[in-house]
Amino acid sequence: MAHKIAILGASGYTGAELIRLIATHPNMEIVALGANSKAGQSMASVFPHLRHLALPDLVTIEEIDFAGVDLCFCALPHATSQEVIRDLPKHLKVVDLSADFRLRDPAEYKKWYGNDHAALDCQKEAVYGLTEFYRDEIASARLVAGTGCNAATGQYILRPLISAGVIDLDDIILDLKCAVSGAGRSLKENLLHAELSEGYNAYAVGGTHRHLGEFDQEFSALAGRPVRVQFTPHLIPANRGILATSYVKGAAQAVHETLQKTYAGEPFIQVLPFGETPSTHHVRGSNFCHIGVTGDRIEGRAIVVAALDNLTKGSSGQALQNANLMLGEAETEGLMSVPVFP
Amino acid sequence: MAHKIAILGASGYTGAELIRLIATHPNMEIVALGANSKAGQSMASVFPHLRHLALPDLVTIEEIDFAGVDLCFCALPHATSQEVIRDLPKHLKVVDLSADFRLRDPAEYKKWYGNDHAALDCQKEAVYGLTEFYRDEIASARLVAGTGCNAATGQYILRPLISAGVIDLDDIILDLKCAVSGAGRSLKENLLHAELSEGYNAYAVGGTHRHLGEFDQEFSALAGRPVRVQFTPHLIPANRGILATSYVKGAAQAVHETLQKTYAGEPFIQVLPFGETPSTHHVRGSNFCHIGVTGDRIEGRAIVVAALDNLTKGSSGQALQNANLMLGEAETEGLMSVPVFP
Amino acid sequence: MAHKIAILGASGYTGAELIRLIATHPNMEIVALGANSKAGQSMASVFPHLRHLALPDLVTIEEIDFAGVDLCFCALPHATSQEVIRDLPKHLKVVDLSADFRLRDPAEYKKWYGNDHAALDCQKEAVYGLTEFYRDEIASARLVAGTGCNAATGQYILRPLISAGVIDLDDIILDLKCAVSGAGRSLKENLLHAELSEGYNAYAVGGTHRHLGEFDQEFSALAGRPVRVQFTPHLIPANRGILATSYVKGAAQAVHETLQKTYAGEPFIQVLPFGETPSTHHVRGSNFCHIGVTGDRIEGRAIVVAALDNLTKGSSGQALQNANLMLGEAETEGLMSVPVFP
Amino acid sequence: MAHKIAILGASGYTGAELIRLIATHPNMEIVALGANSKAGQSMASVFPHLRHLALPDLVTIEEIDFAGVDLCFCALPHATSQEVIRDLPKHLKVVDLSADFRLRDPAEYKKWYGNDHAALDCQKEAVYGLTEFYRDEIASARLVAGTGCNAATGQYILRPLISAGVIDLDDIILDLKCAVSGAGRSLKENLLHAELSEGYNAYAVGGTHRHLGEFDQEFSALAGRPVRVQFTPHLIPANRGILATSYVKGAAQAVHETLQKTYAGEPFIQVLPFGETPSTHHVRGSNFCHIGVTGDRIEGRAIVVAALDNLTKGSSGQALQNANLMLGEAETEGLMSVPVFP
Repeated sequence: MAHKIAILGASGYTGAELIRLIATHPNMEIVALGANSKAGQSMASVFPHLRHLALPDLVTIEEIDFAGVDLCFCALPHATSQEVIRDLPKHLKVVDLSADFRLRDPAEYKKWYGNDHAALDCQKEAVYGLTEFYRDEIASARLVAGTGCNAATGQYILRPLISAGVIDLDDIILDLKCAVSGAGRSLKENLLHAELSEGYNAYAVGGTHRHLGEFDQEFSALAGRPVRVQFTPHLIPANRGILATSYVKGAAQAVHETLQKTYAGEPFIQVLPFGETPSTHHVRGSNFCHIGVTGDRIEGRAIVVAALDNLTKGSSGQALQNANLMLGEAETEGLMSVPVFP
Repeated sequence: MAHKIAILGASGYTGAELIRLIATHPNMEIVALGANSKAGQSMASVFPHLRHLALPDLVTIEEIDFAGVDLCFCALPHATSQEVIRDLPKHLKVVDLSADFRLRDPAEYKKWYGNDHAALDCQKEAVYGLTEFYRDEIASARLVAGTGCNAATGQYILRPLISAGVIDLDDIILDLKCAVSGAGRSLKENLLHAELSEGYNAYAVGGTHRHLGEFDQEFSALAGRPVRVQFTPHLIPANRGILATSYVKGAAQAVHETLQKTYAGEPFIQVLPFGETPSTHHVRGSNFCHIGVTGDRIEGRAIVVAALDNLTKGSSGQALQNANLMLGEAETEGLMSVPVFP
Repeated sequence: MAHKIAILGASGYTGAELIRLIATHPNMEIVALGANSKAGQSMASVFPHLRHLALPDLVTIEEIDFAGVDLCFCALPHATSQEVIRDLPKHLKVVDLSADFRLRDPAEYKKWYGNDHAALDCQKEAVYGLTEFYRDEIASARLVAGTGCNAATGQYILRPLISAGVIDLDDIILDLKCAVSGAGRSLKENLLHAELSEGYNAYAVGGTHRHLGEFDQEFSALAGRPVRVQFTPHLIPANRGILATSYVKGAAQAVHETLQKTYAGEPFIQVLPFGETPSTHHVRGSNFCHIGVTGDRIEGRAIVVAALDNLTKGSSGQALQNANLMLGEAETEGLMSVPVFP
Repeated sequence: MAHKIAILGASGYTGAELIRLIATHPNMEIVALGANSKAGQSMASVFPHLRHLALPDLVTIEEIDFAGVDLCFCALPHATSQEVIRDLPKHLKVVDLSADFRLRDPAEYKKWYGNDHAALDCQKEAVYGLTEFYRDEIASARLVAGTGCNAATGQYILRPLISAGVIDLDDIILDLKCAVSGAGRSLKENLLHAELSEGYNAYAVGGTHRHLGEFDQEFSALAGRPVRVQFTPHLIPANRGILATSYVKGAAQAVHETLQKTYAGEPFIQVLPFGETPSTHHVRGSNFCHIGVTGDRIEGRAIVVAALDNLTKGSSGQALQNANLMLGEAETEGLMSVPVFP
């Protein structure tokens, strides 16, 4: 029998991406779609690409009867998410796509997000949703916190290298290029086609991007001591895709072998042959992440590049992968569609 | 047991799109991939987005043993295609994606394509592959000729209207906007990013585009008398999508009702509510076609707009839909993935 | 001595484009920039591409002392524009870029724009700003109404043909493709990069676009009887450019000759050799308009395609061209920069 | 009287860009355009955006009479360029846009470009064309070697910092994002719109890009000892623009002050206020370079980002700036057009 699924925040891109993926899942049924600002509308009017699907109309979150729901995806803005999830019935499994439960330390949360956390109990309970590294905890979790899309990409590169001790922990640079859908469906001048097409720029330069909170937490835990990476995101004139270029100090071959060994059995993480580099085009619309390693001409330095689709592997695909684990489904169910190229 | 599938011309976009779709088909197995110019290479090197799939390496067509193959997709250039298909073993079912078997009259073929047809017997045998209108013939065919992508889009708008007699046959205009993948992976100056991005233009203006041969053949057969449409394609700075705007003389409501009735049971053709218009963005990467009808301020005129993905519904998706029919599979198998937006 | 120039609405795209052009004009000096919503900011912060210019900061319109101003460009939203211009001192020459003074008949204005006109005297006084056809009136005007960008493109094709009587007046179709900057810097969902890139669609289908008011007024005046064209604009994933494809009934050679003769002495309108077609890429960022004529395979029908840059020739370039005339400058001053390709 | 100008390699993008710029130069007249592969064609057919200009038709280089030519721009492919320039009459001033005369050491040339240099005398004579740092030498040079576009961008960031000694010379990372026109008008699969749009990737990873030869030569000379930077270029789905992000170790404020002081009098280099970051969109189509400096959260590290247009400041604009110096013209003549945004 199909699991009953609710999606809160269904009028945003990650909500729509969840629906796109779940539509091909044999054992999930979407029973409720919440979107307060567009309640009353049909999904066909909000997202015409979903018009062929039989979907419930959008409703307010208050209108949803969660009694018959097995799992709820929460794709709401941060700060809102924590208040909503706090008040959900406790029988519900929850996969949160916001930033609200990614940081375990309330002080760190406040430092990066500004507000006091409104759901400290949930925060304590939440499991960090980077599937490949928290698989067992996720399988038995009630509440899983989806990672930041940039944070996921950087961790796919760096976690194995930090764990294996093959790189210098004090000199890690992550230069990241992100497509615009990572900013969501919000009406901001710099997200207009006329402002972005043909233009690209760095933003949140100097270590101010919030996903650094996740890097700090995770990398320091792995290393057993504080690790601070340098991280500069760039906005690229494209709709989907993250390309992360990491500059590390360590033996390039050891870096490559470490990544290959770590991801050997993983269905979605593909480590390319040594010296090859990935492109966002080749993971577009899919749950795959491609990683390439090259040695620099300067001895003892390596460049590691990773590509994934921010809306899929970076967000909604990850969320479904985690939901599969939580519901006892095959982890890859609904997620094996092939990248769309060109 | 899975049907054994071969794809000839696997190094082009329609070949790659076939693989993308078939990868999610439960009852098809790709056993051979032909591509003479890139024989010996792996698909991962030719199309890195397919690297996670277990696929045979590319070989020359001559190297393929067709004995164990059930159905062969032929995504070769026109003129080449007819010579290859002519010499294939006759037990093979064949879906051709080239232009070689679309026109039934050899004189018309020569008029539009320049050369004498080299496989007249096959040409006689071939069934025109516009699934929704040739379903029964396709199901029992050995050789099916995929339609032109523009030709498919125009026919989805106009066939029902011509059949129903609700429009003036002598005043049909089809202004079509096509993305660049319709031109294939060929190295031409005007297909470079630097030449196309931020630029758009008409081409083959004045009735010289080869897909007019299909319009003439099909529309005249439907009307029982010669029908000549005016057709101007435009190249748009995008990768996938066809948007066809048709200007017809007839009652807009009758036009809308005719289309709605025709496509009521069709899984892939979606007629929008009267007055709504489709976007290529909402069918991207999928086998769906959206059609919208609006009445003009001038009484007795209607504008009909259709959108589909040229590589999917306009080519490889159509081919798979036809192959499903030919092999006794559910027509929609492998084709229900949701459009990728944004 | 340089003419003193003020620009109202300097924080929008047409305002910025005016500054870009005027910056290379030897006899114009910008003395005031009005933009109520961003008053107090520097132009470098609102439009960083202008940061090397010595420009006044943005102020509210109320703050501007018009005493020393010779000519004022008004790039405000329609409805606002009429109220502002009504109250400007009468010594000022004014070039309005809004829709407010394009239609001479107050009833027509209300029909297309919804509101009663608030400056009927100015409306009566205003000269329609299609330079090539109103050159003398513009030279002696105090208030010139810039045309719609789509309206300009369509008129460059059709005015000469209607005047010369070489086409059927009752069967004119104008299928227009417009880049997104035509919609201005407004925060709307469909103007976001993620919504537009890779997507294209028709809008204002069926004869509802406001620029039809200009077509009706101008074409009917030329013909001496009502003329109603069919007009469908499409939104294209590009930043600049209008491509208009017109389907007319008439002898293609006569159509071409008429256009050639009309524009023989014009500095900005280039009629291509018969059978060639223009691209928006080749007029980008310039004040040029390219027009191509092709005969259809159906006898007695022609396709005329015109390309211009909506922000330049379609709006701010036209405005400067008119201002040059009004101030006794050479008409081409500040406008001869070459299209930016690629 | 106008200087007589010849352009060799006029059918490529840098050739066209030179014509675009020179068209607005009051004291230059183009008297010959060489392009062997397209000899006999008009510029209007090769580059329709130039059709309004009165230009000579394309001819072979052999056909050009250099007797009446004052200065020759050479926009030919590398290796070809050195053979052509070697045989030009010696009265000619020459600005070369190829890579052939950038490296002074023949061994370094061979290391990076593979072939023995065929014009060692010219190589010895050539002045490196980074205007702001070789101004006097350029003014009196006969042969100037235009820099690589990436090499220019990186040097605008790093030269002042190396000279001033404010950064660690052994830990410099340059992560560069380049638009596709940097690869020229060559027919390569990865430059097709369908392959590039929506995709981005690193290339020449690991220190193999040829512009490293320029960095090594120039930075080592400045420092008085070998300096090796890490440099990774990325291909971005846009037509024009380079964005270079440099990670340096040094005090961010000192870095900013050094750059500000260095470029205080420069007409084209704009150092932004501390903490601001540039975008390629804001220099598009212009000769300007914007540079921004931010301090990292890690003490003692700075991020410096520079943006310029690869075809203008990175290539043809630089070439014209140098030609102005060589001919005694004002350095900014023909180069003050404003960036085209949006």
